[in-house]
Amino acid sequence: VKVAVLGVGLIGGSIGLAARRRAGAHVVGYDPDAGVLSSAVELEAIDEPAFEISEAVTDAELVFVATPVGVTTRMTELALQGAGPQCVVSDVGSTKHEIAAAIADPRFVGGHPLAGAETAGVENARIDLFDGATWYLTPGADVPVAGLERLRELIGKLGARPVEIDAHDHDRLMASVSHLPHVLANVLVAQAGRIAHQSRESLRSSDVQDQEQSSRLSVGPSFRDATRVAGANQAIWPDIYLSNRDALIEAIEAAIVELEQIRSALGEGDAEALTAWHALAFATREELKRAGLVPGP
Amino acid sequence: VKVAVLGVGLIGGSIGLAARRRAGAHVVGYDPDAGVLSSAVELEAIDEPAFEISEAVTDAELVFVATPVGVTTRMTELALQGAGPQCVVSDVGSTKHEIAAAIADPRFVGGHPLAGAETAGVENARIDLFDGATWYLTPGADVPVAGLERLRELIGKLGARPVEIDAHDHDRLMASVSHLPHVLANVLVAQAGRIAHQSRESLRSSDVQDQEQSSRLSVGPSFRDATRVAGANQAIWPDIYLSNRDALIEAIEAAIVELEQIRSALGEGDAEALTAWHALAFATREELKRAGLVPGP
Repeated sequence: VKVAVLGVGLIGGSIGLAARRRAGAHVVGYDPDAGVLSSAVELEAIDEPAFEISEAVTDAELVFVATPVGVTTRMTELALQGAGPQCVVSDVGSTKHEIAAAIADPRFVGGHPLAGAETAGVENARIDLFDGATWYLTPGADVPVAGLERLRELIGKLGARPVEIDAHDHDRLMASVSHLPHVLANVLVAQAGRIAHQSRESLRSSDVQDQEQSSRLSVGPSFRDATRVAGANQAIWPDIYLSNRDALIEAIEAAIVELEQIRSALGEGDAEALTAWHALAFATREELKRAGLVPGP
Repeated sequence: VKVAVLGVGLIGGSIGLAARRRAGAHVVGYDPDAGVLSSAVELEAIDEPAFEISEAVTDAELVFVATPVGVTTRMTELALQGAGPQCVVSDVGSTKHEIAAAIADPRFVGGHPLAGAETAGVENARIDLFDGATWYLTPGADVPVAGLERLRELIGKLGARPVEIDAHDHDRLMASVSHLPHVLANVLVAQAGRIAHQSRESLRSSDVQDQEQSSRLSVGPSFRDATRVAGANQAIWPDIYLSNRDALIEAIEAAIVELEQIRSALGEGDAEALTAWHALAFATREELKRAGLVPGP
């Protein structure tokens, strides 16, 4: 199978590595940065570099667009222009509704591998990046069965599990389990920064304190865990938020409604309501765990 | 030094273990549950059990009230009734303003060790539970210097660093770095539960899906980290929220204001505002790390 990868970073490079070695694919890579392309050849993430998109996709049976989400739609359009009639073009963007609405071509199948990306760049590409990962696919109604099957088969060989889902459902799910957690991590950090600053000022001005004490404020591990992703990957997150704006606005509004309810229960000293709410959160998390949505432990 | 521990659970038991072995203290333990007391003796967390509060605190130089936060104030009052004039009575509750306002006795010094408590009970007590931990103290202006020094010295021998802070500052800090993260974890879980349910229904009703697929929804590690504490320790958290209600309401209101700003920026497609906000979160988290507030990595 001949595979083209457009954008050879962490994700594109890992697709190339795994497709070559696990699926015996011939992988052509395109990247606007020629230095990236020569690294990719050296790292054996691609068999050959292409210096034009049209050159990369000619004769390809599968094309993966693995660029930052802000340019994915445009790159996908260019790929479809150059690709043959039997080719399937997929992407790896973390939101799917916007691109599905923009691209009417039946050869396009939206995709989203749930693979960690705390690092970036082809130099961090790994053959096992997708092992055990869910790889969402959002095929339109008119996608040819053979093409979709070819895509599913390759994704399986990359080590991932292809799971088909409606593009709008996908984005609402991602808004609630990924984008909103990132937003709330940023909110937590902003507030803690403000309060910590005030507390340090107060410690400094207190005459019972020794000089060093003002640097000894400390917090527990729950804050570290809750804010691990705050401000992460600055180059891509603002685009992700915007590409999923409708679903994310819906999720933020629902969060505001719930926070207002909690604020009211606190204001009224309603222990019963707080206890019921807290118990429900426990039960829901257990349910999500049983459903495999929250990885253990 | 003679130490009394009122409430011999995870925290009280760990204080007993460390005070006995590291400070050579004689530790008397009181607990309303006689079975807990005999376990504590077996585990060598206390030297001797007391079956009345007054018996436990007689002749004690330091008393630690280590009960759930809902009964801490009442237990502290009883301890102060029985304790001698030179005794210092401290607690380990996670909020400090309420108890400071309720208790006028100069022998009382509020305390709050930042020690993890994912487990509970004296059987999980550990001599090293406080190693390297910050132990906040909120002494009033009229606390005798010798008594405060005795308390600080023992806390140091338990392995922790005593840090003095104003009770109100402490509660605002905890609201932002501990109580609000717990509230937001519950909010995230509630929303994800609702959306996951809808998505599963949608997968089930889709004729392109195989039967098993509906159980294969999946999320990334950021959700797991952000919701690790959701619904945790149901027996104590509703009381913690309520005991810090003023500061927590303030933190929730600030979070709502920030969420409304983000919602507006998304609605207006304001990439510049989102980018600046996301970059600020990154910078603030780095600052909190440098200040030692967020433990690495």
